[in-house]
Amino acid sequence: MRKSIFYTTMFLLFFVFLSSCNNKSKTDENKTKTDTATVNEKIDTVVIIKHIPVTTKKETAYKKEERKKAKNLNPLPSWNNTKTKKTIIDFVTTVTDKNSQYYINPENRIATFDNDGTLWAEQPSYFQILFVFDRIKELAKENPKLKRDKLVKAVVNDDLETVRKYGISGLGNLMSIAQSGVTTDEFEAIMKKWIKTAKHPETGKLYSQMVYLPMLELISYLENNDFMVYMVSGSGTDFMRPWSESVFGIPENHVLGSRQKLEYKIENGKPVLVKLPEVDYNNHYKAKPVSIYQIIGKKPVVAFGNADDDIPMLQWTMSGDGKRLAGIVHHTDSVREWAYDKNSRTGELDKGLEEAVKNNWLIIDMKKDWKVIFPYEL
Amino acid sequence: MRKSIFYTTMFLLFFVFLSSCNNKSKTDENKTKTDTATVNEKIDTVVIIKHIPVTTKKETAYKKEERKKAKNLNPLPSWNNTKTKKTIIDFVTTVTDKNSQYYINPENRIATFDNDGTLWAEQPSYFQILFVFDRIKELAKENPKLKRDKLVKAVVNDDLETVRKYGISGLGNLMSIAQSGVTTDEFEAIMKKWIKTAKHPETGKLYSQMVYLPMLELISYLENNDFMVYMVSGSGTDFMRPWSESVFGIPENHVLGSRQKLEYKIENGKPVLVKLPEVDYNNHYKAKPVSIYQIIGKKPVVAFGNADDDIPMLQWTMSGDGKRLAGIVHHTDSVREWAYDKNSRTGELDKGLEEAVKNNWLIIDMKKDWKVIFPYEL
Repeated sequence: MRKSIFYTTMFLLFFVFLSSCNNKSKTDENKTKTDTATVNEKIDTVVIIKHIPVTTKKETAYKKEERKKAKNLNPLPSWNNTKTKKTIIDFVTTVTDKNSQYYINPENRIATFDNDGTLWAEQPSYFQILFVFDRIKELAKENPKLKRDKLVKAVVNDDLETVRKYGISGLGNLMSIAQSGVTTDEFEAIMKKWIKTAKHPETGKLYSQMVYLPMLELISYLENNDFMVYMVSGSGTDFMRPWSESVFGIPENHVLGSRQKLEYKIENGKPVLVKLPEVDYNNHYKAKPVSIYQIIGKKPVVAFGNADDDIPMLQWTMSGDGKRLAGIVHHTDSVREWAYDKNSRTGELDKGLEEAVKNNWLIIDMKKDWKVIFPYEL
Repeated sequence: MRKSIFYTTMFLLFFVFLSSCNNKSKTDENKTKTDTATVNEKIDTVVIIKHIPVTTKKETAYKKEERKKAKNLNPLPSWNNTKTKKTIIDFVTTVTDKNSQYYINPENRIATFDNDGTLWAEQPSYFQILFVFDRIKELAKENPKLKRDKLVKAVVNDDLETVRKYGISGLGNLMSIAQSGVTTDEFEAIMKKWIKTAKHPETGKLYSQMVYLPMLELISYLENNDFMVYMVSGSGTDFMRPWSESVFGIPENHVLGSRQKLEYKIENGKPVLVKLPEVDYNNHYKAKPVSIYQIIGKKPVVAFGNADDDIPMLQWTMSGDGKRLAGIVHHTDSVREWAYDKNSRTGELDKGLEEAVKNNWLIIDMKKDWKVIFPYEL
């Protein structure tokens, strides 16, 4: 049952990807970003966000201290001075004020953020799907025999018509080939290389550059105020962890995603964990509050998402006592990013928008509320 | 498959409990503790460890600061000055010394501890099994109709002969009745009440008094030295979290146990998580390193256990680079605690002892290495 939901979800994402590949011209109508695609191509490191202190893992401890010092001095500089920014700052100021009736103890300052479409972009498809395709191509280069498999051959040749014919089971096979049969150490190395080198198919940017600067500032602002910030995403935990700290400043043990099963075994006298081609946990929709409880053990007081998939996490967060903050990132900027909600095949936002209005959740209007979207705009 | 392993494990534990109940005289031969059983009965709070600063949740932040100040001044006072104590102190001193080649960054100072038999006692049976029996009796008091079920009636009447006849499926049913069909909030309240009031069947002590003081000191010592300490247990996460901080100073998000499935739903307009009678994760043996990786995302540098069940966690911990510490708590004290290893039906330690000797893991001899075992001895 869980497996079938997983594959259905992945199938949908897959078609988004295939469709977008076949309709690039349509996507291009909505954005004028491709002309800047090659500007930053020379950057060969994941450290791309120079003006906020999220850099390499080695520097994080020091930089965190720096952030603490800068605490509350001009927070959220990439946000326009709209009501949205004021709401966030008022919330943080209130719940960290020991004299306020809404004061929240640091041990309860849990903030959860969806990833795709909330912290970084998700068009033309979820970046993990793009990774799977990159990985299949690389594997076929290393081992040409893999191309005897017609599906793999189709991926390598960008023959998306054929790939599509294989449907759900085909996508399952591709994900298995791309993400299992290796140890967790090996997969970490693969992911680190990918995030450092792979380019987005439309913008030509590194994926680590496709992050929302205002959201990085929000994470920093919350951490400066002793919030514990977690990523809660439908993407794979193992997909996100190798770069969560260098890109978002979020450590490995604060990353909750979908999980593959692992097998513990001794290989050549050394214990290893091998990634199996089976789903252990599919972290979507109602599964998000469940995994937050199973892993963190507490209800968040702050939650941000961007899609209907995030509704249960936001509902659950807001159901506790005291002051709480739920926010929806609304993709309204067709020039600097992508504009989509109700009818989108990635990050569909339909009922979530109704819920936000009904329950007075914060709606972040990317076009109006954000001075800068991507760090490379600066 | 996983489910069957779970029930098999529980079945074994169950028989240990039943056997021990029928053979109290045999157990008593090994210990002379029952005569002190009523001494502390008047204590009506979970805060029983007065001489080390692990007290109520409210005080924890302050107390932690206190601990930091006391850092490295006379650590491990309840340990005798044996080689074991020296090995631990030498390890911590070395890996926290920035000038040492074995220095470990604070972000990698992950320490994992088994719970039953490592941090608190596990005789005559795992305390979660004892909780399940207590809970069934309480439920039957609230709702006498439950006793129409012959198995429940047998538990209520301490008719263990009949209970035993129901075997594995019987135990599954009892656990379901005791631990599901309630919301997570309700279960937290149940556990908090139990840990505050329930008494151990042989010593008459609160379960929170049946903790090993030297291990509490070790946790404090590691935390003082910026280690992140996690509990990694076969017991239920939801069973442990409601008291992990007040009893051990370990916060909810550092507790990794077995898990039941949860369902997110809206009840009377309010989102809740309901505990289902299905196993989500059975955190035993090879599943321990797997859950550590899935949830924490890093290999520990310190791990302590007491049974064969902990072998993979310790093997995996020791397989990394640099200096690491693995320890086995060996139950050698038949007077102050219980003496058991190879042939024990709880916490069996057979191959684990061989592995410890072969790989030079630390073996803690409770009788020789510990000046005090339980806080109430003081």
